[in-house]
Amino acid sequence: MKKQKGIFITFEGPDGSGKTTQINLLNDYLSNKGYNCIQTREPGGTKVGEKLRDILKNPELNNSLSIITEVLLLQTARAQHVYELIKPSLKAGKIVLCDRFADSSTTYQGIGRGVGKETICKLNNFSTTGLEPDITILLDLPPKNGLERADEREHGQKKDRWEEQDLNFHQKVRNAFLELAKENDKRFEVVSAIGTIEEVHHRIIKIIDKRLKPIIL
Amino acid sequence: MKKQKGIFITFEGPDGSGKTTQINLLNDYLSNKGYNCIQTREPGGTKVGEKLRDILKNPELNNSLSIITEVLLLQTARAQHVYELIKPSLKAGKIVLCDRFADSSTTYQGIGRGVGKETICKLNNFSTTGLEPDITILLDLPPKNGLERADEREHGQKKDRWEEQDLNFHQKVRNAFLELAKENDKRFEVVSAIGTIEEVHHRIIKIIDKRLKPIIL
Repeated sequence: MKKQKGIFITFEGPDGSGKTTQINLLNDYLSNKGYNCIQTREPGGTKVGEKLRDILKNPELNNSLSIITEVLLLQTARAQHVYELIKPSLKAGKIVLCDRFADSSTTYQGIGRGVGKETICKLNNFSTTGLEPDITILLDLPPKNGLERADEREHGQKKDRWEEQDLNFHQKVRNAFLELAKENDKRFEVVSAIGTIEEVHHRIIKIIDKRLKPIIL
Repeated sequence: MKKQKGIFITFEGPDGSGKTTQINLLNDYLSNKGYNCIQTREPGGTKVGEKLRDILKNPELNNSLSIITEVLLLQTARAQHVYELIKPSLKAGKIVLCDRFADSSTTYQGIGRGVGKETICKLNNFSTTGLEPDITILLDLPPKNGLERADEREHGQKKDRWEEQDLNFHQKVRNAFLELAKENDKRFEVVSAIGTIEEVHHRIIKIIDKRLKPIIL
């Protein structure tokens, strides 16, 4: 294993943008290069987090949730995720690859659902104890393409809470992501999710190769 | 049933102060007088809230929780409690009797555990969407008496997270409750929990009878 300081890489973007596939490929790529990687996701990543994810994804329970409850469930899962998995892994010098993180709360709940960007940013700061990713890959995709892909993946299964939202909502979230990327341009890398899996993967490794070099000890 | 506007009564105080017993007795007393009461507790009170309570009370899970996770679990349960049970019950004109509420977060986590009173007050305001009790009965008891009573109740069973804290902690929490009561003297009623169950019950109904009259339609 190469000696390194911990690096925290998050993947953001809509459902259907290929985040999970691309994280898997990046994990393989970096592991093959000798990096010690850990792959995780939000909500989840810990025993408690997965229990909270089950509540959020359970159609019988989630239909009765208030938006405030939803916001707080996600923040609770994040707090434990940071404390139990992300911070210790970074401390141990690992590359942490995380499928969604605080930016998803800011865009989906803060802006998309109208809870307020500032409120969510304060909650993010509390739940993460101020931890921010080193690199955030934003897989950008026009909402129409994202919904089509999510449809294909689900094979007509009952769509979950987020995918049931309409196109306008997803447009608002996309704009919010792009705005966040502009405001945090040192951290964010906007990658077009249009093209084949291999094409997108090559866009990502080009960026990661370039960005990892200067921070490896 | 008497016609009334909804009234929100919370019970606060340490474990072992007799909150549950006294809420049961007050519920019987008010119901016999023709009031439409609902009795609930925190954390809990809803399907989601009880699931979160299970996490908090599960010794295998709670030992690994960060204090931030604990704070947020309690706030999440509260958000759903207010949204799903408390607000609708108040709107329907019921008396809501609740075993612990936001003041427990302020005193136990905010002051006792050192997260900060202001931080917890902001979170309380978010999770409750600003809802405050009409009356808060603080069952006041010196920590030593409370721990003795909790010991008896548990019959040597494994004590839960809160009861494992030491006497200093409980003294700090007691002082915090008494200070909150001073700061919110229109809402709080401090009742000594020393004496027999009947003695404490009579202290409570004397206060409730006096305070309910002016707010009944």
